[in-house]
Amino acid sequence: MTARSHASAIERVRAAYARIDSVDRPEVWITLRPRPEVEAEAAALDPRLPLAGRLFAVKGNIDVAGLPTTAGCPSFAYRPEHDAPVVARLRAAGAIVIGTTNMDQFATGLVGTRSPYGPVRNALHPDLVSGGSSSGSAVAVALGLVDFALGTDTAGSGRVPAAFNGVVGLKPTYGTVPTEGVVPACASLDCVTVFARTLDEAEEALAFMAAEQGRPPARRPGPWRIAVPAAAQLGELDPGWAGAFEAAAARLADAGAELRSIDLTPFTRAAAMLYGGAFVAERYTAVGAFVDKGAADLDPNVARIVTAARDVPAHRLFSDRARLASLREAALTGLGDADAVLLPTAPGHPTLADVAADPLGANARLGRFTNSTNLFDLAAVAVPSGEVEGRPFGVMFVGPAHTDERLARIARLLAPRPLLAVVGAHLTGQPLNGQLLSLGARFEGTTRTAEHYRLHVLATTPPKPGLVRVSAGGAAIEAELWSLPEQGLGALLAALPRPMTLGPVELADGTTVPGFLCAPEALTEAADITAHGGWRAYLAAVAPR
Amino acid sequence: MTARSHASAIERVRAAYARIDSVDRPEVWITLRPRPEVEAEAAALDPRLPLAGRLFAVKGNIDVAGLPTTAGCPSFAYRPEHDAPVVARLRAAGAIVIGTTNMDQFATGLVGTRSPYGPVRNALHPDLVSGGSSSGSAVAVALGLVDFALGTDTAGSGRVPAAFNGVVGLKPTYGTVPTEGVVPACASLDCVTVFARTLDEAEEALAFMAAEQGRPPARRPGPWRIAVPAAAQLGELDPGWAGAFEAAAARLADAGAELRSIDLTPFTRAAAMLYGGAFVAERYTAVGAFVDKGAADLDPNVARIVTAARDVPAHRLFSDRARLASLREAALTGLGDADAVLLPTAPGHPTLADVAADPLGANARLGRFTNSTNLFDLAAVAVPSGEVEGRPFGVMFVGPAHTDERLARIARLLAPRPLLAVVGAHLTGQPLNGQLLSLGARFEGTTRTAEHYRLHVLATTPPKPGLVRVSAGGAAIEAELWSLPEQGLGALLAALPRPMTLGPVELADGTTVPGFLCAPEALTEAADITAHGGWRAYLAAVAPR
Repeated sequence: MTARSHASAIERVRAAYARIDSVDRPEVWITLRPRPEVEAEAAALDPRLPLAGRLFAVKGNIDVAGLPTTAGCPSFAYRPEHDAPVVARLRAAGAIVIGTTNMDQFATGLVGTRSPYGPVRNALHPDLVSGGSSSGSAVAVALGLVDFALGTDTAGSGRVPAAFNGVVGLKPTYGTVPTEGVVPACASLDCVTVFARTLDEAEEALAFMAAEQGRPPARRPGPWRIAVPAAAQLGELDPGWAGAFEAAAARLADAGAELRSIDLTPFTRAAAMLYGGAFVAERYTAVGAFVDKGAADLDPNVARIVTAARDVPAHRLFSDRARLASLREAALTGLGDADAVLLPTAPGHPTLADVAADPLGANARLGRFTNSTNLFDLAAVAVPSGEVEGRPFGVMFVGPAHTDERLARIARLLAPRPLLAVVGAHLTGQPLNGQLLSLGARFEGTTRTAEHYRLHVLATTPPKPGLVRVSAGGAAIEAELWSLPEQGLGALLAALPRPMTLGPVELADGTTVPGFLCAPEALTEAADITAHGGWRAYLAAVAPR
Repeated sequence: MTARSHASAIERVRAAYARIDSVDRPEVWITLRPRPEVEAEAAALDPRLPLAGRLFAVKGNIDVAGLPTTAGCPSFAYRPEHDAPVVARLRAAGAIVIGTTNMDQFATGLVGTRSPYGPVRNALHPDLVSGGSSSGSAVAVALGLVDFALGTDTAGSGRVPAAFNGVVGLKPTYGTVPTEGVVPACASLDCVTVFARTLDEAEEALAFMAAEQGRPPARRPGPWRIAVPAAAQLGELDPGWAGAFEAAAARLADAGAELRSIDLTPFTRAAAMLYGGAFVAERYTAVGAFVDKGAADLDPNVARIVTAARDVPAHRLFSDRARLASLREAALTGLGDADAVLLPTAPGHPTLADVAADPLGANARLGRFTNSTNLFDLAAVAVPSGEVEGRPFGVMFVGPAHTDERLARIARLLAPRPLLAVVGAHLTGQPLNGQLLSLGARFEGTTRTAEHYRLHVLATTPPKPGLVRVSAGGAAIEAELWSLPEQGLGALLAALPRPMTLGPVELADGTTVPGFLCAPEALTEAADITAHGGWRAYLAAVAPR
């Protein structure tokens, strides 16, 4: 019943390799370790370690001892003797590396298609891009092949693939996770990031990756203050995305956050400077000498970008730095005492065909909201926020350096607070109502079910109602609606005794919410009390006078 | 579906007063505001405020404009013109004060019985004490009369009642919540605290109460490091409490925390100094002149303590301060780089009769683990941690000043990770398995149900199994076990389509876990496939060759 797995590390390794086989996504991996080798490592593992048996994947530009570090370019590859410190820290905690993942070559791209190992298809919609450059890592997490995965992020490479595959991506404050043993893109901006399916899992891994935490800036008391740009400043978004973004903002307001507007101009101007200005020269510093040799396995788009970066004059870097400093000041002034800026993680989600048709344009568009983060020395948390036409939609919280934990806490405000329909012992004033209260439930009103139900009294202690849907002869039954955190709803379910069940209940207004039902076997000895119209009316009728 | 209430503030006020009437606990309140006055305030409220319509109670030693501040002593009462700043901040955010609550007089006591307004009975077991001194506030929260309540804490008054009534109590870092407008107990140690039913709700209120947050000390990367004293150092506990404490520690270890031992000696020595040394003299500074007048409504035990404090010589205060400083240094050295000390909040839970028989001894025992916190300038979070013989059991995380948020995050490790039995479309490799993964579920193994079930195939898309318990003719059905956070389990339930339900499923080993079942109405057109022994075997048998 605990976070530590009941399954042994070996069982978990076997299950992961079985899943890797069954999903048939070979392009996710650059080097997948042989299963027997990983099983042997799992067998030797101390099960008391805090991450014992947690499996992870490592982006192909981060050193894993014994595996080639390719940065997405086979001819560039070298075989490191030592793990990068960030990998070593996770292994020391008991986590197991499964392999290295595909990526946009030299971490230059946000699409996930710029690789001689093949384009990485989206985890959920194979005709869409995965996003990049940490493409394989995000897809491996989304497909459940690993528990978490490492990426890197200079322009958004740890966030855009999170949004496109419906997972969480943490872009920690610059300098808090060591980048030794990582092939640089822009060394002065690069961050190692982590993908996971939930914020808890991502933060758990990050706790082992990060060095001493810096101190967050103080904050005024009061609600979370979240800056939201006006729709017009977001520019053109994919159809339905503006609405999904507004819905995320509305959910934050409903959770008690104070929304305020912010001028996005300094952010978008800085974003354009990442590839359009002098900063791209740092990519030539990193791999220019190699790219100049013209290896056959260079991605043509990556090679073009890196080669062009050779000719940026240094004086332009000085003037760009000055301009960036003033944009940063404007951005931080605009942020004021807000805790975070809410942004769509990306403006849209292209298909593989879109990117093939316009490789540079489609890529550049993806960085509209992410490119400025690292230039401004900010932290960011990218989380899923619903869907648009069946495709994942993601938003990003961007805040000052060292507010990583605060941003994650704010992102949790997006967790919904489901309604629960209550028809019996959990009604206000009834014996089990206190259980709802203790789970954080709040009364939301009285209503009735749709006219499709019958109510029984079960032979339980205390007596409980058995609500059953029927195809004919149903009635509307009195119900109370309570809202509660998903955690409380899960706790209620985990403690539920037979023969009660929880499942969808249709209400008089046609909506459906979870509510108390009962298992079929409980009905054989139960009296039908539908005629009373509800539990309270039944109790009043049978009460001793 | 959001945190903001669907019910209006007026509806919530009415429901609260109805609950106050029905629970019949008049001793909770010193002054309950008239309902029409509170309704009028609710009607005038701006519903866009972040805490709009959230109801709270205020301990009787904190100023609420227009209500008498009594500190539990009618003859001491005065009628403040202004709210204490902490109350004003919450009201400005939209929260509504319902009234002031009963307390151990002058906040001198941990029992909840030292009041001329009558002893406060425990919320769950009326023959047990409520704990104090913030007795009425904790009970009002536990009974669901308010959403949260303010207490104060010098020796444990904001934590012991939390533990005894099964709610959360936050004792913030000294100085972060203003104490202006609060009748002092020991002004140099007093903190305003908050009670709520969940950590989220307590932290939400605290965000409005606290001033600029201080900066937490940096921490080494890695797992949460939690110091746990040896059982022998805890002294005599109530029957079953040592086991409950060990279970809490084990759950933290299972959640990946690193447990280490700590010498509790400096803590227990300091604890004894709070009433047994010179520090008690500060209580005479606060209310001694009033107590010396010998009003008839003084609690005799409180009066004795305050009066005796008059005769403490100042030189003793200097020597006690020096001794405390060296104990604090020893405590912090012992803490080392641990993030928190785990302690039982109290050593046991007395009945009202126990306290009547030995008023000073029973009270002193209760502060064994809490008394040292404020003397050492530490922060603390008190949370429920299961039950012992049907009575709430609580633990406390104590950590360095300004680690309030970190302590709350650590306390969340105690949230269980329930198991889920899966028998059909959510099995590994089946179409809906990805839904489990995205909710943070982890595979825990394959098992079978008890031999009491029959399996049907429902006419759904994709086809789903209908698992039904039967009284005779049942079989054992193949099942997978997955563990997941309570939040994920709640999200699964909230998204469940008809006719599926979730409820208790008995496994072959006799344990019961939540699992997929189906509503009775789905069975009328469903084929019985029990003979296959499981969903996968059925699919294999019907698959096209």
